[in-house]
Order: sequence, then structure tokens, then C-alpha cells
Amino acid sequence: MRFCRIELGGRPAWGSVEDGTVRVLSGSPLDDVPAATGAEIPLADAVLLPPVIPGVFYAVGLNYRSHVEHALARGYRVAALPERPEVAYRANNALTGHGSPIIRPHGVKGRFEAEGEVVAVIGATLRNATYEEARAGIFGWTIGNDVSARAWQHEDRSFWRSKNSDTFKPMGPWIETEVDPLAQTTTMRVNGEIEAVFPTGAMIFDPYEFIVETTRYITMRPGDVLWMGADGTCQLEPGDTVEIEITGIGTLSNPVHAERTRR
Amino acid sequence: MRFCRIELGGRPAWGSVEDGTVRVLSGSPLDDVPAATGAEIPLADAVLLPPVIPGVFYAVGLNYRSHVEHALARGYRVAALPERPEVAYRANNALTGHGSPIIRPHGVKGRFEAEGEVVAVIGATLRNATYEEARAGIFGWTIGNDVSARAWQHEDRSFWRSKNSDTFKPMGPWIETEVDPLAQTTTMRVNGEIEAVFPTGAMIFDPYEFIVETTRYITMRPGDVLWMGADGTCQLEPGDTVEIEITGIGTLSNPVHAERTRR
Repeated sequence: MRFCRIELGGRPAWGSVEDGTVRVLSGSPLDDVPAATGAEIPLADAVLLPPVIPGVFYAVGLNYRSHVEHALARGYRVAALPERPEVAYRANNALTGHGSPIIRPHGVKGRFEAEGEVVAVIGATLRNATYEEARAGIFGWTIGNDVSARAWQHEDRSFWRSKNSDTFKPMGPWIETEVDPLAQTTTMRVNGEIEAVFPTGAMIFDPYEFIVETTRYITMRPGDVLWMGADGTCQLEPGDTVEIEITGIGTLSNPVHAERTRR
Repeated sequence: MRFCRIELGGRPAWGSVEDGTVRVLSGSPLDDVPAATGAEIPLADAVLLPPVIPGVFYAVGLNYRSHVEHALARGYRVAALPERPEVAYRANNALTGHGSPIIRPHGVKGRFEAEGEVVAVIGATLRNATYEEARAGIFGWTIGNDVSARAWQHEDRSFWRSKNSDTFKPMGPWIETEVDPLAQTTTMRVNGEIEAVFPTGAMIFDPYEFIVETTRYITMRPGDVLWMGADGTCQLEPGDTVEIEITGIGTLSNPVHAERTRR
């Protein structure tokens, strides 16, 4: 099943996606088994929102060997390869949906990059989860673009504006509940040109290992998201359109705009 | 006014606090002006929840000169005094209410410390806010205890378990809407003994300066919280009760327990 959130009369509504149609649901499939309301909208006409607003927005930093090597080759300060699955965080203000613009703020200099990530959407309350409980506790999978302003990432004390400025976290287009993310391929395109292709599953630690370790200390809850890190990156300029495709899930596409006004 | 959230029939409910009584409200004062439902509970019998669950949980790291000096004196790796108001984040799973136990997890070694902080609760949608708009955009003030497991803070890549383990972020007891936090005094007590006293307002950057800078890039929304950092710290052991009092707001009190079971 594919579940999405759309804007409907100025409010968010859940839907299921099938054959180019969004069937509006009575509630969240994360809370319950919602009924179809009978309302239908062509997918092409739907305004897609981030498919979930998490209670906690977990994100993995370095989780692909070649991403670390890429960063080192650029001369960035990068920690050594992680020896434990240690999670970090992003912020909900930065979320935006499929099709919405990524706004490059005034003051961004140098590399302004996309990172294509598979995202686990948690579907159960998990504490001290086993590997099998972690697998069973996932509601589904979506796609995230961990947009990053590299100069800020390196000059600021935290990732507050480098990775959490408004619109820096496109997520979508929907949640796919029946896919093995570790058997897929991630492709990043800018203006239709392929910029990076990598095996989605070539992770240092897989999502279930992260959940096992995280839930030794932390209760993960339905609707929490876990962004799994990226291998490839690509430079974004205003006017570009960036696409992250993960086979079996879909394609997250966003145009890039320059910030227009600031008083 | 003092607003709280309480557990009522297994669900959260908002209330106003006056003269030792919680008057149950019809909804959130952050969304609307809620009506009294007529239900009343003695404050002494109420189970207080974190007074708000934020969309984004902002937290300031080093924001008092003497806290930085204290950390340096202990030989910790600490960045230099901040030259800009740069915000960081905590995670909602760690929130717990006034009176609930702080659970010290298995594996915590060395300093396990409380940090008493004043917390701004945002009441408006703020983007590119001026200093005056930041002041006007605050709904009220509460108290936070930024419980920290120092060994993990220094050995992990992020603050995921050092500061975000379950129960590590007591917040409460309520939100006070009519107080100038910069004119108050913070007192930390363990088992009734004073461990630290500092002027709440002796910050490097005040809450409004943080909001001005943050909202240059980020939209802050009603219900978001901004924890303002601590000056004093104190060691916590299982069996202790830690109190953070901020004049004009109230006292946040939590017992400390050792984690009992882990399968």
C-alpha cells in the first residue's frame, strides 16, 4: 500500500495512492485502520504534504563508506567511520512535500547539496527492541532529501541552519508499506541528468540495527521517522529540479528557488 | 495565568492553575482561547504532564559564562564562548512531567547531572522576527531540567543518549504567562539542599536574540519550546529528588530512580 498526506480544503488529509488516484481516508493509518471516505482526487492534481510529521525526527549522519571518503576527499572535517549506530536529529520546520520548492536562503555560499535518503517510518512503540521487533515495527518507507548548506555545516556549532532551514528537508512522495529498502537502488537526478546512483542497502548499519541500539535508551513511537543517510550528493542551483528515485518506493522531486525577500 | 497539562482519564487535558486548583479547559490555549469545562481537580491530586509537546524542541547549549568556565575547569572539551546565538535541538521522547521519575539508565558512568533552565514557549508563527516581535511572540515560560550523562556526552557523536534518553528532559510544572524571566533567580536543590543559585537572566544571548537569529532561516511555531541553557549543574544519584525553582514561575521537582530491568 502507498499512503500519502494531501492538502484538502486547507487542511491535511491522509490518502491511499493507487493507479494515479488518491483515495481520501478517514484518519491516519498510523493510528488505526482508516476507512475510505469515498472522496477521490487524481494524483496529478493532489498537493502532496510530507507523508508524516514525526514526533521525533531521527537522522543518521555518515552511513555509507563512500560518502565518508567523498567528504574526506573534499577536505571536510569528517569523523572516522562510525563504529556504532548513533542517531542524530533534524527539525520538523524544515519538512516540505513532494513538488514544493527548496528555498536557498540568502547568505548560502559554496556547496548547496542534495542527499538522497531512504526513510523508515516507525509504526509501533519500540523500547529495547530486538532486531526482529525492529523489522516488524516499521510501518513503511519513504524518501528524504537531506539538503545541506556545507559552509554553514562547517562554521556553525550545530546543524541548525545548514540542515534545518525551512524547506531543507523534502520528504515523500508517499509511504510505501511493501518494499525491502535494502534491496533497492537510489538514483539522484538534477534536471533529468543522473548525478549519483548507489545501492540503497550498502549501509554501514541498517535501519533495524539503528532501532535496536536507539531503543536501548529511547522509546520510538508510531510516526517517528529515521532518515538513513546518503551516499551520493549533488550541487543544487536556483532553477534546478532535483529528483531522488528509490526503486520500489517512487520519486521525490523538488524545484530549487532562491530566497526572494527579506526585510 | 498558569496553564498546565494533566492526565485525565488516561488522556492529556489542558488546565489553568489557580489557588491550588486545576480548572480543566476545553482545548489548548496555544490554539485558541479555551473555555473552562467546569471540571476542577485539586492541584495536589493532578498528574502533571509536560506542559506542551513541541513541534520543534530547541535548546541552547552554552549560554552562561560561568557554565563554560565550570566545564573547562573540569577538563571537558568545550567550545569557546559563543559569538552568535546558535540553537540546537533535543528530542520529545525524553520529555517527562513534574513529579515523574528521572530514570538513570544502565551503563551511565561518572557525572549524571541536572541543569536548570528557563524555557520559552512560543505562541506565534515567527519568521524574520524583530526583537519586539520575538518578545510579543512568546506565550509563556516554564522550567526544564537538561539532565545529562557526561561520559556519553563526550564519547558519542551526537547527544542522542547523553541528553535524549527517555525521562532526561523533565519540563514543567506549568507555563506562566506573566513573568519577566530575565529578572528572576534560578535555584537548584537536591534533597532540599541548595546546589546552585544563579540569576536566570545572566545569559550570553537572551531568548529574543535567539528567536531573531533563528527565524532568519527557520519558522518557529506555537508550541515550539526554546530551552535557554543553564549555569549551575548538580550531580544526581538514584534516590535523590532534584528541584529547579525559578522565581515567578514555580518549582520543577523530580525523583531520580535507577533503571530496573532490561531484557
